[in-house]
Amino acid sequence: MNKIRIGIAGYGNLGKGVELAVRQNDDMELVGVFTRREPSTVKTVTGCNVYSLNEAEKYQNDVDVMIICGGSATDLPEQTPELAKLFNIIDSFDTHARIPEHFANVDRVAKENNHLAMISLGWDPGLFSLNRLYAESILPDGKTYTFWGKGVSQGHSDAIRRVDGVKRGIQYTVPVEDAMNAVRSESMPELSTRQKHTRECWVVAEDGADLAKIEETIKGMKNYFDEYDTTVNFISEEEFDAVHNKMPHGGFVMRSGVTGENTHQMIEYSLKLESNPEFTASVLICYARALSRLRAEGATGCKTAFDIAPAYLSKLSPEELRAKML
Amino acid sequence: MNKIRIGIAGYGNLGKGVELAVRQNDDMELVGVFTRREPSTVKTVTGCNVYSLNEAEKYQNDVDVMIICGGSATDLPEQTPELAKLFNIIDSFDTHARIPEHFANVDRVAKENNHLAMISLGWDPGLFSLNRLYAESILPDGKTYTFWGKGVSQGHSDAIRRVDGVKRGIQYTVPVEDAMNAVRSESMPELSTRQKHTRECWVVAEDGADLAKIEETIKGMKNYFDEYDTTVNFISEEEFDAVHNKMPHGGFVMRSGVTGENTHQMIEYSLKLESNPEFTASVLICYARALSRLRAEGATGCKTAFDIAPAYLSKLSPEELRAKML
Repeated sequence: MNKIRIGIAGYGNLGKGVELAVRQNDDMELVGVFTRREPSTVKTVTGCNVYSLNEAEKYQNDVDVMIICGGSATDLPEQTPELAKLFNIIDSFDTHARIPEHFANVDRVAKENNHLAMISLGWDPGLFSLNRLYAESILPDGKTYTFWGKGVSQGHSDAIRRVDGVKRGIQYTVPVEDAMNAVRSESMPELSTRQKHTRECWVVAEDGADLAKIEETIKGMKNYFDEYDTTVNFISEEEFDAVHNKMPHGGFVMRSGVTGENTHQMIEYSLKLESNPEFTASVLICYARALSRLRAEGATGCKTAFDIAPAYLSKLSPEELRAKML
Repeated sequence: MNKIRIGIAGYGNLGKGVELAVRQNDDMELVGVFTRREPSTVKTVTGCNVYSLNEAEKYQNDVDVMIICGGSATDLPEQTPELAKLFNIIDSFDTHARIPEHFANVDRVAKENNHLAMISLGWDPGLFSLNRLYAESILPDGKTYTFWGKGVSQGHSDAIRRVDGVKRGIQYTVPVEDAMNAVRSESMPELSTRQKHTRECWVVAEDGADLAKIEETIKGMKNYFDEYDTTVNFISEEEFDAVHNKMPHGGFVMRSGVTGENTHQMIEYSLKLESNPEFTASVLICYARALSRLRAEGATGCKTAFDIAPAYLSKLSPEELRAKML
């Protein structure tokens, strides 16, 4: 059987994760990285080919699935519809509120060009969404809770780094253990934003900066920190580099529901990830397998994790799956 | 839109659970219970209709999905292929080793009769199987662990009750906390049967029975208890009735895997169920929704949870799902 030929559009942490994930799946091969930078300046982890994203069109017949690894704020709304003209694509678009609009744009272009697209894959949106859907379908009477962390939020870390006097900064979202245990007690508590998560900031200040001012500015930032109990810790650059050089993340989806005559039932799903981008990449890669199979069956347009029967994700045949994994 | 018309074949604990679950889903209605007993002797929880299973054929046009609630040992291997001649069916066949054979039998009959069948639904097989599949597809390098409990095992409880001198008996399967924590530490331990679960028995003895003999007999039972650390507790009938009158269960599916350069990633799924049959019934009912939609699209033959795209399970439309749950 021919291997699934993977392209990577955009070479940041997620792109590197995809590059590494391809190595773990022997039914796939990497065509190369497509970058907006000058290709000769990009050093890849595995030494794979690097091409200019501007010349992607030339490789239309060489790539079965293009995995787009840009950011959701500005890259993907532009790049995904554009690349869906040329390729079957996968992205990890994660701005929840704008998913319907992004879906419509990508669906139209993909159908016009006879391509198949899968958007908003990863773990949230993605695996967490799947767990919300399964759990709410099974237990229609109940309440769903999502907790994130402990893990690095890129958006909040970026926000810290924009504060005057901050040289380096990172932010961890931390789920509140008491709140999770209240959910597990099946009392279906109402939890405010503040009760569910705290925010932990680690900052390297510029020489001579006003630390009290930095702390006050961070804690008051609208939409980022003002609704949370936030701690700001100042540390040396050495400590920062030694301790805060990873991108762990994770979280919990819980559904507390009732059946029959007030019988309590609890479903919980959790992830504990040493590397958020490597894990997200692993999800994207296994949906690339599903995409290539569904495309071979003639599917076009845009799909999400909700539309993909689980069997499409596995290397095993339906017979093997029933015998070994059911 | 017409409601999905549900029939229940077999009225034990699972059948009662389905009867109650239909009430929680306003897109469904219950046609009635089909029983091997004399219908007039069966009192249902909700007072629904009761028919003789022998006359099921008369109701072919009244039932969209027949949910077969018999046992896997002897009922389902016979009943499911037989009823798949007359109806679209769902069962919870859970003898893992015999699933391929059962699938082949049901698939053949369903196709011949233009029906759609879904087998081996519930939580294991079912939701646990789905989690094994998703997790192993995403993290190809790793190890999967399934723990069951704390919960009542019907098979083991039945085995206790066959021992001479035992008047009442129930058995709880208990996952070993240390073993689960070893898995969560991501050291990927090799765990023996004895290390993963213990078995807790609660027994009411006949008057004058030899308690030491009962305990010894239970602990030595091949395939049931001999490979486990088992405790046998003798209690009064009053205590038994007061404390051990429920059917709780649950368990854990964990996948410990690595990505990139030995980066640890952990996926965990767990259920904590006050009533195993009511929860299993809730899973069957939401696959009945999927079945009725897939049948309307023309699907026939046999399917499992692996073959069903998650969106089919939800009452929400694809647009609503993307907007609210992704």
